[in-house]
Amino acid sequence: MSQRGILSGLTVVEGSAFVAAPLCGMTLAQLGADVIRFDQIGGGLDYGRWPLADNGDSLFWAGLNKGKRSFEVDIRSERGRELVEECIAKAGTFLTNFPARGWLSYESLANRRPDLVMVLLTGNRDGTSEVDYTVNPATGFPWATGPRNYSEPLNSVLPAWDAILGGLAATGLLAADRHRLQTGEGQLVRIALSDVAFAMVGHLGRIGEAQLESEDAPRDGNYLYGAFGHDFPTSDGRRVMVVALTTRQWNALVDVTGLERTVGAIEQAMGIDLQSVSDRFKTRDVLAAVLKPWFEARTLSEVRVAFASTGVSWGAYQTFSQLVREDQRCSTDNEMWELVEHPGVGGYLMPGTPLDFSAIPRAAVRRAPQLGEHTEAVLADLLGMTSSEIGRLERDGVVRCAR
Amino acid sequence: MSQRGILSGLTVVEGSAFVAAPLCGMTLAQLGADVIRFDQIGGGLDYGRWPLADNGDSLFWAGLNKGKRSFEVDIRSERGRELVEECIAKAGTFLTNFPARGWLSYESLANRRPDLVMVLLTGNRDGTSEVDYTVNPATGFPWATGPRNYSEPLNSVLPAWDAILGGLAATGLLAADRHRLQTGEGQLVRIALSDVAFAMVGHLGRIGEAQLESEDAPRDGNYLYGAFGHDFPTSDGRRVMVVALTTRQWNALVDVTGLERTVGAIEQAMGIDLQSVSDRFKTRDVLAAVLKPWFEARTLSEVRVAFASTGVSWGAYQTFSQLVREDQRCSTDNEMWELVEHPGVGGYLMPGTPLDFSAIPRAAVRRAPQLGEHTEAVLADLLGMTSSEIGRLERDGVVRCAR
Repeated sequence: MSQRGILSGLTVVEGSAFVAAPLCGMTLAQLGADVIRFDQIGGGLDYGRWPLADNGDSLFWAGLNKGKRSFEVDIRSERGRELVEECIAKAGTFLTNFPARGWLSYESLANRRPDLVMVLLTGNRDGTSEVDYTVNPATGFPWATGPRNYSEPLNSVLPAWDAILGGLAATGLLAADRHRLQTGEGQLVRIALSDVAFAMVGHLGRIGEAQLESEDAPRDGNYLYGAFGHDFPTSDGRRVMVVALTTRQWNALVDVTGLERTVGAIEQAMGIDLQSVSDRFKTRDVLAAVLKPWFEARTLSEVRVAFASTGVSWGAYQTFSQLVREDQRCSTDNEMWELVEHPGVGGYLMPGTPLDFSAIPRAAVRRAPQLGEHTEAVLADLLGMTSSEIGRLERDGVVRCAR
Repeated sequence: MSQRGILSGLTVVEGSAFVAAPLCGMTLAQLGADVIRFDQIGGGLDYGRWPLADNGDSLFWAGLNKGKRSFEVDIRSERGRELVEECIAKAGTFLTNFPARGWLSYESLANRRPDLVMVLLTGNRDGTSEVDYTVNPATGFPWATGPRNYSEPLNSVLPAWDAILGGLAATGLLAADRHRLQTGEGQLVRIALSDVAFAMVGHLGRIGEAQLESEDAPRDGNYLYGAFGHDFPTSDGRRVMVVALTTRQWNALVDVTGLERTVGAIEQAMGIDLQSVSDRFKTRDVLAAVLKPWFEARTLSEVRVAFASTGVSWGAYQTFSQLVREDQRCSTDNEMWELVEHPGVGGYLMPGTPLDFSAIPRAAVRRAPQLGEHTEAVLADLLGMTSSEIGRLERDGVVRCAR
């Protein structure tokens, strides 16, 4: 399959389900790698994952498999497994979150292809299962998120850990590919979801804080931790978030809202210096109360006009629908987005890669495959099979070719 | 600087602040790249970011700059800028979220080093500013997260978009490095935070759903979207999350909790089939109510024993403190973690990379540098300067060497 892109020449076989591994493969596919996802005939565990389109097709699956080729094969049969093994040996790179045992073990696969790069995503480091929705509770964030004094943990709707794992797995795959290009050596790369999640808690300073301090910082609603940031309702029922991570951003906010004198009086009365980020954090309740009327007196578009080109750091809240309908950054005005027809579902906005490479023109956004859409092409291209051989496999129920 | 690791031989100069770009650089450093972060004398905008240790040092900065070398230089001076430009030219790879204008523009830097790979992180595609806390409101997730009928948006405490951007930037950098290894050609790689965030909304199917459906799915507390998943309190005041993404997980849960007959009666009474993931989602309130007493009658450790090796997908909620104190996965029993001394702060658990490469032994976890700790070494190694030349630069206030 002719593909231009920064990763052209890289062929990856993917055996996967759900978010992290498919996202990793899609990231590579959108950069021009030839990514071949194999699935059990009829589809894998994530083939019906919500959200669904009206015709019952999974918009989730369509979202996480864009630009890949689909190879539909009976991996419960000996012959089907052999075909997958042969594809992996030809491709040279294998990405999976399936149990890497038996026929899918690195040892077994590397026997056929000594310089194989295999990237294995697991739940925990010991290979036991864990999904985003079960590891997130363990990270500490659901108890740190939500309104002050709220008595229950709050889950994240975004599977953030899976998304972070998918990106790091792609980094790991390319690092191993670089090592192979330089030394000829393949290897097994392992990465666990809970390690990714807990490491990030540490990277952000929360592990050190928990070990060194006596108690956890309390949950704090929509306030930003350690700086000034808060949300405000506008007069037209919308809502905005305002952030001052830097003193320049704070001064811009005070300037635009015309609160210099009020802020000066607060400094004097409270004996604080609002040029200090820590003092802004400590007095966040007062600052939010002082700022609130300014926003309540303005519509969202008045706020937008007032803040334009001032250096104030802010953003409007949007629902998913408002994002699609109102935000130009999520439209075909932004070259990352294209209106693409998905067979049986209709046309909708699909994103390409957020990465722009100056040496390579941006490729057209390719939709996810239909299940089995490339079975025939994969068997022909990768394994050099003839139509009649492929026809026989299909008649024997070993593969399915969508046409 | 001798570093073993999968990316050994790669040298990256980083000019950055806050989360995404520093995280990208640290990811590369933990894989063995020589990552040299330069900062204005006295530290950049993120040098005092919370959380802080008792001595006032930033645990955030210490978390996001592990394993890098620190070059402290007056970039407001002509000579300081020249030194940074020379370092970038020698290193050949430059990672930044600073404004890429003037002396830091790709054009200017590529003049000195034609095969330069420069990775530029921006807020928006047009180069305007945006931070995690201002783009998150725009994604739709704050209105989709939180208790049913809650009337305000809910911010994420985890800067997830920054974390995802950092990983994707590392993937982009390695993809461009691969292209350079194969063709000798350098390039500018651009990536914007809002593109990363909105693309992920699309990847997860939410853009398609918003375009094709008439209204947004309502917020749904701690329920999982499109499958069965919910949290439950235990008898000892703890809380657990239970998920059934697959039918096997659901059947394991019903089996362990002994609810076969109850579940069968619900199926009959409601005319549904709980072997269907959609039916499990649609009746989630009933299922949660039926399951709740089982959890309320058990302590967390009783739940743990009952679920062990059963195929039930679940996890315990933990605060940050509980994560550090109770979870073996976040301890030196897991080789990713080491107890490392940070000067002036003390010893605490620091994570290395979650990636394991079978071809390369895992490197020791290195702490973040002290500001200016490697100024002298960088000027000597990269620019071949003598001690007396470096001493003169220091006396002139162009650089600072921490000793």
